[in-house]
Amino acid sequence: MNITKPTLLLDKPRAIRNIDNMVSKATRSRVRFRPHFKTHQSAQIGEWFRERGVEAITVSSVDMAEYFARHEWRDITIAFPVNLRELDKINALAQTITLHLLVESLDSLRVLQQSLTHPVHLWIKIDTGYHRTGVLWDDVDEILTLTQAISTSERLTFAGILAHAGHTYAARSPERVQEIYRETVSRMQALRQHLSAQGITPCAISIGDTPTCSIVDDLSDVDEIRPGNFVFYDLTQRHVGACTEDQIAVAVACPVVAKHPERQEIVIYGGAVHLSKESLTLPIRGNDATPVFGYIAFPEQTGWGPSLPQTYVAKLSQEHGIIKTTDPTVFNQVQIGDVLIVLPIHSCLTANLLRKYHTLDGESIALADFT
Amino acid sequence: MNITKPTLLLDKPRAIRNIDNMVSKATRSRVRFRPHFKTHQSAQIGEWFRERGVEAITVSSVDMAEYFARHEWRDITIAFPVNLRELDKINALAQTITLHLLVESLDSLRVLQQSLTHPVHLWIKIDTGYHRTGVLWDDVDEILTLTQAISTSERLTFAGILAHAGHTYAARSPERVQEIYRETVSRMQALRQHLSAQGITPCAISIGDTPTCSIVDDLSDVDEIRPGNFVFYDLTQRHVGACTEDQIAVAVACPVVAKHPERQEIVIYGGAVHLSKESLTLPIRGNDATPVFGYIAFPEQTGWGPSLPQTYVAKLSQEHGIIKTTDPTVFNQVQIGDVLIVLPIHSCLTANLLRKYHTLDGESIALADFT
Repeated sequence: MNITKPTLLLDKPRAIRNIDNMVSKATRSRVRFRPHFKTHQSAQIGEWFRERGVEAITVSSVDMAEYFARHEWRDITIAFPVNLRELDKINALAQTITLHLLVESLDSLRVLQQSLTHPVHLWIKIDTGYHRTGVLWDDVDEILTLTQAISTSERLTFAGILAHAGHTYAARSPERVQEIYRETVSRMQALRQHLSAQGITPCAISIGDTPTCSIVDDLSDVDEIRPGNFVFYDLTQRHVGACTEDQIAVAVACPVVAKHPERQEIVIYGGAVHLSKESLTLPIRGNDATPVFGYIAFPEQTGWGPSLPQTYVAKLSQEHGIIKTTDPTVFNQVQIGDVLIVLPIHSCLTANLLRKYHTLDGESIALADFT
Repeated sequence: MNITKPTLLLDKPRAIRNIDNMVSKATRSRVRFRPHFKTHQSAQIGEWFRERGVEAITVSSVDMAEYFARHEWRDITIAFPVNLRELDKINALAQTITLHLLVESLDSLRVLQQSLTHPVHLWIKIDTGYHRTGVLWDDVDEILTLTQAISTSERLTFAGILAHAGHTYAARSPERVQEIYRETVSRMQALRQHLSAQGITPCAISIGDTPTCSIVDDLSDVDEIRPGNFVFYDLTQRHVGACTEDQIAVAVACPVVAKHPERQEIVIYGGAVHLSKESLTLPIRGNDATPVFGYIAFPEQTGWGPSLPQTYVAKLSQEHGIIKTTDPTVFNQVQIGDVLIVLPIHSCLTANLLRKYHTLDGESIALADFT
């Protein structure tokens, strides 16, 4: 491929392997696999899941649900607190597909009761410790009130309790992720038992994050998993211990435009509008809290090589990326006009910015256009 | 306007006032005004500049130069170290418009000498202290070597020396910005004098950043200014002292989807894929280094009101924004289903993500599509 500007590369065999691994694990654990499609945002990549038996998916917006519904997905969960300003679109979707929504307050639920024109499955979003959204797992009264209100609504079916243990992203060891999983499961199961004692059955348990679904071997204590990022993984997941570097399936090819020997810095065409400003804070050369915006690899005939030691993206402007290296071999080997590969910190945000995948065998795959 | 999802609002009268102010200052200072169009990336907004006499512009990529050349801009500087992997496009551009490029190394210059098929104006990028790119201002030998190589090239015309004092963005007072400007000017003028003594004339001085061009009253010590962000401004500029809040011309309208009284948090539909993960690190309630991803205002009939005290975007996921407030009046006033306005930290990145402006009188303005 002739790289002329920042280009999102996709190692399709790696992505397929990542999908296969998660499908196998779901099958072994006998849980429903409802992958989150916000990571890839692409109908074509969605087909790779469908070919492996996936029938139900997760998305993070009504727009995304519409897009995938247009591409023949018939069972979609919008895993985001229901947006009451999109009820028209929600009603149109509920008319044509099996639609699952999330509620976490009686206020939103009341509006749904009054406004929905077609049947919808409702999950109650539970906060098991991440504290982003959801009803706190131990606020049983509130949760009971919600389930009771759902059961009296003609168009609403109670699907179950749903959590996103996003605090696994801050974990820095697989053990910590397993600990969070055990805590999540014990809180969700206790809650389900409580609801069951009040006659609220059935009640599925759905969990979502990629670190948990990658690291925990047996997921049979829940009914459904909704990971998304695992299809590509990234440096954040590697850092948590959710993947190895050779499972990372996307990277950004960037032209080298300048070198500064006095600072051992290499400037690439590849900035915040290509990589996103997501960073990992890592200890680098004695500085405990260095922001890192990507690791660097050399391009190879069949993709890219291992990440280079002592070399990372240290700064981003709108279009510039500043690579720092303390390895003179790396610095001297790179020439202006070369291409370097950036492994992304957060593949979802990088894909969202670049809007088009280029597979290593030359196929071009578009992301959905929501503008 | 019926806001249903994160929507980029543009207060056109404010943007026009911002443009008028900078045009006036450039006229008063008798400097060429070559605004940077990477901020708005829109042919339609470009016309607002053209109507005010602007003829020459700055962009940050070859793609952007092509886009604005298609929209009848005939004098364009690509203010980025020349990307040797796009020489075909550069040659095509140089054939149809007056094209200005930046070099900062003999390596790049040699390739240009061999490959250019049409005349190009060349600036030498000077590093006056920001240390992102450019030849260090005091590396006079290197700069002389470059100018001499340019003067022996048939297709190259030496335009002058160009700097971007991006370290003004880290300034936290107008005085510090003025100090940086004086230092930049003294370094650039000394360099020009040195070149002149060697017979290298004429040599224009071009500078670029919005803080300097906004705060310094008389810019007549340079020949050209290239600010971009000033058309919209943002919270970073307000923080530097380059604008007041009522000069900020873009903001993002976001639906409220959840409230958490126990944490005084409001959840909006509006996350990293809408606002970008750019943050300001501010002292908030005793915590010296709190990352802030936006300030919040209420929508008003004619735009939005002043930013709310003790209220800010504290966290972003892909689609979620978490607003923290310690003002109970604000918290109680906001209801699920309402719309809140987010003032962006960095308007360039936010506009780049949302891809479409909505003026307050209902006009829709697209950004260029580079995918």
